[in-house]
Amino acid sequence: MSQDSEYTPPRVWTWEKASGGHFSSINRPIAGPTHDEELPVGKHPFQLYSMATPNGVKATVMFEELLELGHKDAEYDAWLIRIGEGDQFGSGFVAVNPNSKIPALVDHSTPEPTRVFESGSILLYLAEKFDAFLPKAHAARTETLNWLFWQMGSAPFLGGGFGHFYTYAPIKIEYAIDRYTMEAKRQLDVLNRRLAETRYLGGDEYTIADMAAWPWYGQVVLNRVYEAGEFLQVQEYEHVIRWAKEIDARPAVQRGRMVNRNFGEPHEQLHERHDASDFETRTQDKLGEQQ
Amino acid sequence: MSQDSEYTPPRVWTWEKASGGHFSSINRPIAGPTHDEELPVGKHPFQLYSMATPNGVKATVMFEELLELGHKDAEYDAWLIRIGEGDQFGSGFVAVNPNSKIPALVDHSTPEPTRVFESGSILLYLAEKFDAFLPKAHAARTETLNWLFWQMGSAPFLGGGFGHFYTYAPIKIEYAIDRYTMEAKRQLDVLNRRLAETRYLGGDEYTIADMAAWPWYGQVVLNRVYEAGEFLQVQEYEHVIRWAKEIDARPAVQRGRMVNRNFGEPHEQLHERHDASDFETRTQDKLGEQQ
Repeated sequence: MSQDSEYTPPRVWTWEKASGGHFSSINRPIAGPTHDEELPVGKHPFQLYSMATPNGVKATVMFEELLELGHKDAEYDAWLIRIGEGDQFGSGFVAVNPNSKIPALVDHSTPEPTRVFESGSILLYLAEKFDAFLPKAHAARTETLNWLFWQMGSAPFLGGGFGHFYTYAPIKIEYAIDRYTMEAKRQLDVLNRRLAETRYLGGDEYTIADMAAWPWYGQVVLNRVYEAGEFLQVQEYEHVIRWAKEIDARPAVQRGRMVNRNFGEPHEQLHERHDASDFETRTQDKLGEQQ
Repeated sequence: MSQDSEYTPPRVWTWEKASGGHFSSINRPIAGPTHDEELPVGKHPFQLYSMATPNGVKATVMFEELLELGHKDAEYDAWLIRIGEGDQFGSGFVAVNPNSKIPALVDHSTPEPTRVFESGSILLYLAEKFDAFLPKAHAARTETLNWLFWQMGSAPFLGGGFGHFYTYAPIKIEYAIDRYTMEAKRQLDVLNRRLAETRYLGGDEYTIADMAAWPWYGQVVLNRVYEAGEFLQVQEYEHVIRWAKEIDARPAVQRGRMVNRNFGEPHEQLHERHDASDFETRTQDKLGEQQ
């Protein structure tokens, strides 16, 4: 791989499988399945196939919030898709999400099973289905959707840009780190100014816009992803921190963060979730660790 | 700027205003307005503030499609926001879109003016308002929204990633070009496989998902952006090309592409649009050029 400033791209790009850093084994220039593998199906109306990355956490927090509200029809089975091992390229997964990204959802409560992919689409789907976490008033609904779409279009610069070049890339490239750090800080400042004016992104109510943004921006200012708190000077974003802490304290968020998690502290990991009681074992583990 | 593989990021990032390539003058690590400037307001219910980048074209195509369908209430004034000159940092624009990106929309037909920002949010807002280009059937509506959100989360890798490092960055960085070329080709293949099965992204109907994806992926395979057709071998994506050409031939798309356009061929430029008759002058210009 050249780091030479004289590099000239070829006329036609070709796939060299050698380099690519942390995720080189799972990045490909083609779509479609790599192997036959059916997805498991549990007993609940909703079958979620995911992992506890920030995009995955959006969906599990939403399910836990719906259950917390008393929506028993929001019961779900959450199956772990190990993206580092290529589970997302199995034929069953690709049939649910042709984009081979988590989270992916199948709703079995409809006459025919309905596939839902893209975290923003899953949040909107569930919000409309349960009439929850999306305001009914026109202005508040519009503002919530503005921020939901803002998160979808912005976080690729935070995760795929800043996170990649600061944390995961095999070489440190100053130009790329500068480019995406500037954008990450700008986005945090956009949120900070908004949250100086309103309690939540959509306004007074906690909504799917917060559920979309918190796993990325909230966890960045809480210094849980990328270990970039000092580099980004996250303490400057005081209103984002206030909002992040408030959401972090919600019981549904604490549960949602654990689901499909196969990294970090053992007591925070719940690889699969099929029943509300699945969390209790983890709580006992935590008590055990603390003793 | 270092191209040295030994580069080590500092403990705390600081803003050096020197480098950044084509868009260095408009990229900042902070949000908010840089100057006081009110936005103009015309006579129509909808006031659009935009430029004919791919994200801008999504909104103008949608308005022209609505007018083509006969929705007279979809009349709009389209004002040019020159992003290279920093118009998006004026106080009036920031009040409509705190993210300082085009397109931004104000709906004056509501009791209080409603701001709508993010191209995906604008498409969904107008689709719901006019009950158009978003299927009513549950399965088709869900699939349309899946692909709408797919476009919002994917194109940052195409535009902000591939387009930036292949076309706009001041230095050619092999690692970054490889990373984003691989992803651009993967996304084109995702679309190609989908469009091998269905006429449009959401299914049988032309929807806001197509309007979102066409200005990016359609114009890439038509070789209108980045001049990367050979590099990406776009001819491989035959179903995307079939879809791109079909949409390109729609009269509303031909008009929508011209609105807020201040680059390219003179006959393709319509800096502002306030009336359907504004397009006629351009058509006459074109005839003049061809004679």
